[in-house]
Amino acid sequence: MAKTDIKVTPLHDRVIIEPAKAEEKTAGGIIIPDTAKEKPQRGTVVAAGPGKKDEPVTVKAGDTVLYGKYAGTEISIEGTDYLIMRESDILAIV
Amino acid sequence: MAKTDIKVTPLHDRVIIEPAKAEEKTAGGIIIPDTAKEKPQRGTVVAAGPGKKDEPVTVKAGDTVLYGKYAGTEISIEGTDYLIMRESDILAIV
Amino acid sequence: MAKTDIKVTPLHDRVIIEPAKAEEKTAGGIIIPDTAKEKPQRGTVVAAGPGKKDEPVTVKAGDTVLYGKYAGTEISIEGTDYLIMRESDILAIV
Amino acid sequence: MAKTDIKVTPLHDRVIIEPAKAEEKTAGGIIIPDTAKEKPQRGTVVAAGPGKKDEPVTVKAGDTVLYGKYAGTEISIEGTDYLIMRESDILAIV
Amino acid sequence: MAKTDIKVTPLHDRVIIEPAKAEEKTAGGIIIPDTAKEKPQRGTVVAAGPGKKDEPVTVKAGDTVLYGKYAGTEISIEGTDYLIMRESDILAIV
Amino acid sequence: MAKTDIKVTPLHDRVIIEPAKAEEKTAGGIIIPDTAKEKPQRGTVVAAGPGKKDEPVTVKAGDTVLYGKYAGTEISIEGTDYLIMRESDILAIV
Amino acid sequence: MAKTDIKVTPLHDRVIIEPAKAEEKTAGGIIIPDTAKEKPQRGTVVAAGPGKKDEPVTVKAGDTVLYGKYAGTEISIEGTDYLIMRESDILAIV
Repeated sequence: MAKTDIKVTPLHDRVIIEPAKAEEKTAGGIIIPDTAKEKPQRGTVVAAGPGKKDEPVTVKAGDTVLYGKYAGTEISIEGTDYLIMRESDILAIV
Repeated sequence: MAKTDIKVTPLHDRVIIEPAKAEEKTAGGIIIPDTAKEKPQRGTVVAAGPGKKDEPVTVKAGDTVLYGKYAGTEISIEGTDYLIMRESDILAIV
Repeated sequence: MAKTDIKVTPLHDRVIIEPAKAEEKTAGGIIIPDTAKEKPQRGTVVAAGPGKKDEPVTVKAGDTVLYGKYAGTEISIEGTDYLIMRESDILAIV
Repeated sequence: MAKTDIKVTPLHDRVIIEPAKAEEKTAGGIIIPDTAKEKPQRGTVVAAGPGKKDEPVTVKAGDTVLYGKYAGTEISIEGTDYLIMRESDILAIV
Repeated sequence: MAKTDIKVTPLHDRVIIEPAKAEEKTAGGIIIPDTAKEKPQRGTVVAAGPGKKDEPVTVKAGDTVLYGKYAGTEISIEGTDYLIMRESDILAIV
Repeated sequence: MAKTDIKVTPLHDRVIIEPAKAEEKTAGGIIIPDTAKEKPQRGTVVAAGPGKKDEPVTVKAGDTVLYGKYAGTEISIEGTDYLIMRESDILAIV
Repeated sequence: MAKTDIKVTPLHDRVIIEPAKAEEKTAGGIIIPDTAKEKPQRGTVVAAGPGKKDEPVTVKAGDTVLYGKYAGTEISIEGTDYLIMRESDILAIV
């Protein structure tokens, strides 16, 4: 489960996302080595900024979202890797 | 037929499209191998976002649309491949 | 003559144009092979979008227009090739 | 003399210009071959568009103008070569 | 501890940050040579500008912030290295 | 002296400048060949446009100005070389 | 000391700065040859423009400022080298 209680406040329209774990087995049960796993494009919002003037942020902590392959900056908070991106880089809520 | 009941909500002015199947036979009946098939530029809207402030989205689920060859990001939802793009990348409603 | 009855509705400020046929003979009567023919920059509007907010489209179906050499995206509708472009890519009405 | 009676209406802020003939002799009387002639940057306005909202076009048919070396798109109308450019590409009225 | 009493006033929406020291030991206690240390992306705000018209700066001296790997310009004030960046380059307050 | 009576009207916010002659001798009296002379960045305004809406042009004919090394387009009027540039390319009045 | 009485008026939001002299000795007293000296990023404002509409310039003659390594254009006034830059290229007042 995504930890939604981290103590980080994103600025403006930024959102912190915990990427979903990449599948470690193929449908046929073969274990995939780490480098061959496709970078996931799905994750859980753990923190959202207050938005920009007149444009509040739409997503909220707990939402499962889809985002572009190269969206966001990787940051590490207390040993866990997150992505921080602008809300406009989020494509959809699943 | 396009499945128009996926449970994904595009953000802002984004639209999810199920691309039409590429023709697998030429007019003369020759079967085309997968790599030679032209990427289709026609598809069916399966979900549309709420639009941006003062700019509601024009297309709606079920519309058949034309879009540019390189428009959108490929996403996979429950095993089906879709394209998610901004409404401004849609050229016309057929 | 241009078919002006296609069933396609361009979005926003887009316009669908049927390019004029390239001349197949030079002034001296020599037949030009297909690859040497210059891409025409003249065509007939077959459909025009509703325009953008506060900016209706100026051209209308039936107008003969000039456009830039690399303007527009090629689309195929019922076997005929058209160009779809923004109205701002149209240079003049002839 | 420039023909100022062509039947073409430029859209928006575009202007059609007939480029001045390049000098075919140097000051010393030497005839210059066609490829060595510098592309002229001076011409006569033959048609001007209605302008953009709140920004009427300043130049009018008959004006001799200077323009940048690479300004405009070449178009051919009834066998004569013209340049069509935005008014903002025109530098000065001579 | 970060020195928060430097005598420099950032202009407009700029913020001066003292980067956190890079860890000199790995979790296993191995000392990392200087060139292998990852550039820190965490620091303490030591001075913030007055903001732009209608957009005051959100962070204040003393805040611990996260910023992008390549954000800001390095400046040296009285022998200490700082980063000066626009507030929009700051990702979050920790 | 700069000729300030040319019959050219720059459009909008453009300004015509006659570049100052490059020094042909070094301080030590050595004559510099033409190709080694640094392109001057100082000149005299000979004509200024009416400005853009709500933004009249600040410089006027006769002003000596400094401009960036690569500013402007070279034009030739009655055998003299001038530079025509936007007023925003002018750095200062000397 | 910086000469603050040059007779040059920067246009709009531009500022003329006299760069601080680069240190010619290292802390250990070794004289650094000219090419190895780091380009200073600190200087004194000698003249400031009137600003843009509704945005007066914040710095004034006499201020010591920090600026980016590649900010501004070098100009030479009466034999002295200055930098002329937009105020937005100035990072902070020291």
